[in-house]
Amino acid sequence: MIKVNARATFSQEGPFKLTTIERRNLQPHDVLIEIKYAGICHSDIHTARGEWGPVKYPLVPGHEIAGIVSQVGSEVTKYSVGDRVGVGCLVDSCGECSNCQKGEEQYCLGGSTATYGAIDRYGHYTQGGYSTHIVVTEDFVVRIPDAIPLDAAAPLLCAGITTYSPLRHWGAAPGKKVAVVGLGGLGHMAVKIAHAMGAEVTVLSQSLKKKEDGLQLGADHYYATSDPETFKQLAGSFDLIINTVSAQINIDAYLSLLALDGTLVNVGAPADPLAVNVFSLIGHRRSFAGSMIGGIRETQEMLDFCAEHNIASEIEVISADRIDEAWERVLASDVRYRFVIDISTMGNE
Amino acid sequence: MIKVNARATFSQEGPFKLTTIERRNLQPHDVLIEIKYAGICHSDIHTARGEWGPVKYPLVPGHEIAGIVSQVGSEVTKYSVGDRVGVGCLVDSCGECSNCQKGEEQYCLGGSTATYGAIDRYGHYTQGGYSTHIVVTEDFVVRIPDAIPLDAAAPLLCAGITTYSPLRHWGAAPGKKVAVVGLGGLGHMAVKIAHAMGAEVTVLSQSLKKKEDGLQLGADHYYATSDPETFKQLAGSFDLIINTVSAQINIDAYLSLLALDGTLVNVGAPADPLAVNVFSLIGHRRSFAGSMIGGIRETQEMLDFCAEHNIASEIEVISADRIDEAWERVLASDVRYRFVIDISTMGNE
Repeated sequence: MIKVNARATFSQEGPFKLTTIERRNLQPHDVLIEIKYAGICHSDIHTARGEWGPVKYPLVPGHEIAGIVSQVGSEVTKYSVGDRVGVGCLVDSCGECSNCQKGEEQYCLGGSTATYGAIDRYGHYTQGGYSTHIVVTEDFVVRIPDAIPLDAAAPLLCAGITTYSPLRHWGAAPGKKVAVVGLGGLGHMAVKIAHAMGAEVTVLSQSLKKKEDGLQLGADHYYATSDPETFKQLAGSFDLIINTVSAQINIDAYLSLLALDGTLVNVGAPADPLAVNVFSLIGHRRSFAGSMIGGIRETQEMLDFCAEHNIASEIEVISADRIDEAWERVLASDVRYRFVIDISTMGNE
Repeated sequence: MIKVNARATFSQEGPFKLTTIERRNLQPHDVLIEIKYAGICHSDIHTARGEWGPVKYPLVPGHEIAGIVSQVGSEVTKYSVGDRVGVGCLVDSCGECSNCQKGEEQYCLGGSTATYGAIDRYGHYTQGGYSTHIVVTEDFVVRIPDAIPLDAAAPLLCAGITTYSPLRHWGAAPGKKVAVVGLGGLGHMAVKIAHAMGAEVTVLSQSLKKKEDGLQLGADHYYATSDPETFKQLAGSFDLIINTVSAQINIDAYLSLLALDGTLVNVGAPADPLAVNVFSLIGHRRSFAGSMIGGIRETQEMLDFCAEHNIASEIEVISADRIDEAWERVLASDVRYRFVIDISTMGNE
């Protein structure tokens, strides 16, 4: 086993402490990555606090990983030492089911392996990117194009692909009207990507506080959902709505904003069920859908797309001793738009 | 005005009584239809009992109309006296909005005109097919192919198109697995049509009571939803589920039966909201959608498809004095599978 430093939470309440964890010795297809940056995703918090089910402690979160290959297994063909690479929410899947065969490993029927908090095929408990190194099978490693700085690339591995995938799947393109609900870590990526895909982009945010940002990120329009006029004015107008908010919302009100054959896609996952009035769907053949990250091939496609369109995440880089504080600010929506941990500060007191 | 006989309900409670109503004098594009048969749809009951909002009485329901053209307006080009024709849920729409232009009059943005219980462009209150004659603009009249008997054709105008349209829209075809929830008026048509489209068809019914019927109608498989094993056995297996049940169901349980990218389409409209756990959607990029009847062009396509595939509704023909009794039996799910009123009995005591 390889001993590496990491920041772990030892209970639901935290705080994070510097500790040592073990990574497996390199198997023939494994890649050892020296992690340079790790993004902080809201789901790190949900998971670590047991809101999505019980977890084992100590837990090292982090599934927005950007780094450099520092060693490769004997049969690795895709990567070499020194390559700029990323790892997202998954580190393995069965590879054999129909969904894996389609390159949709995130929907693996055998159960894909999450980057942290899961049991991998070796029986080890996976630990994430708030750490100096990680060992991942090459098939779950993606290449980060030179055009994207590693720190701003990290959040693309979750926030980027989570929004890119549904935008592609439901056809964001010139002539299409796309709304993004919530301008946070996911939302700001959705705006940038939908804009780059050529869609007409509207941000639906609680207030107009971040309006200037939104327009600068690529939105064509910006509305406050706290204003009831917004729902009257925009009724029946969108082809696609990406809902990045995981809090409870009045889903019928948002469905009413869809045009014929429009789809509202939830990428946020509220813990409690949402009440849907079926008339909201029937009246314009609307759909309410969900989407979860993306496959590995598609993640690479997203990174290449971002490089081509000069897109990355808007970030605030923090040192490793400030994770607890950053989490509190994430919960308060006080970040524009993603915290990224500078892993070189792992040893900070 | 043209005075015609009809059966109307004079209050939420009924009963039906023979009465006289007025149809407008023929406008240049109008067709006068001598109604031969009118199907009884569950939504007749919902509407007449005020469950979908207040209505004006006396009310003549009926939007599954089959008859013979008996007179045409001066500029009618599509139909001649003696033609076998049908009228469904709509008798008019704005004709100008983007949805009407696409032939999706059922989603008219200006508001389409329902066959009964609505105000038409002349300011008249529309009255439906439980009547001897109706006047309809030719664009909302469809042709009933000779191969389909008029009595068994009547229910196609609502139950047929309501199931045909989503089956077409969501791609029922060879290689696709389609489930139909509920084997009633809508469900039995969904089974016949999905089978004719080449899909592998499964009926999900509360019990196995109608299993023999279901298989005879074209289903490949038949499961009881009262058996929890059904949900385990069929998890993740369908590309498309057509839910014809308008009662409250555990929507998450049904969503769990969908494969990757599968869609559950509600054609029934429960009065109360359904609780949807977003994880049910996100986990396999599933969609929960709604669909409402179909456009006029598509209704004609459906009738031609039914004629080609030797499909019609399974019916029980009743005389006009038995409508109240038939309604009670509809509410008790005691009909295989659609009541059709023989309009020649309109004068029965």
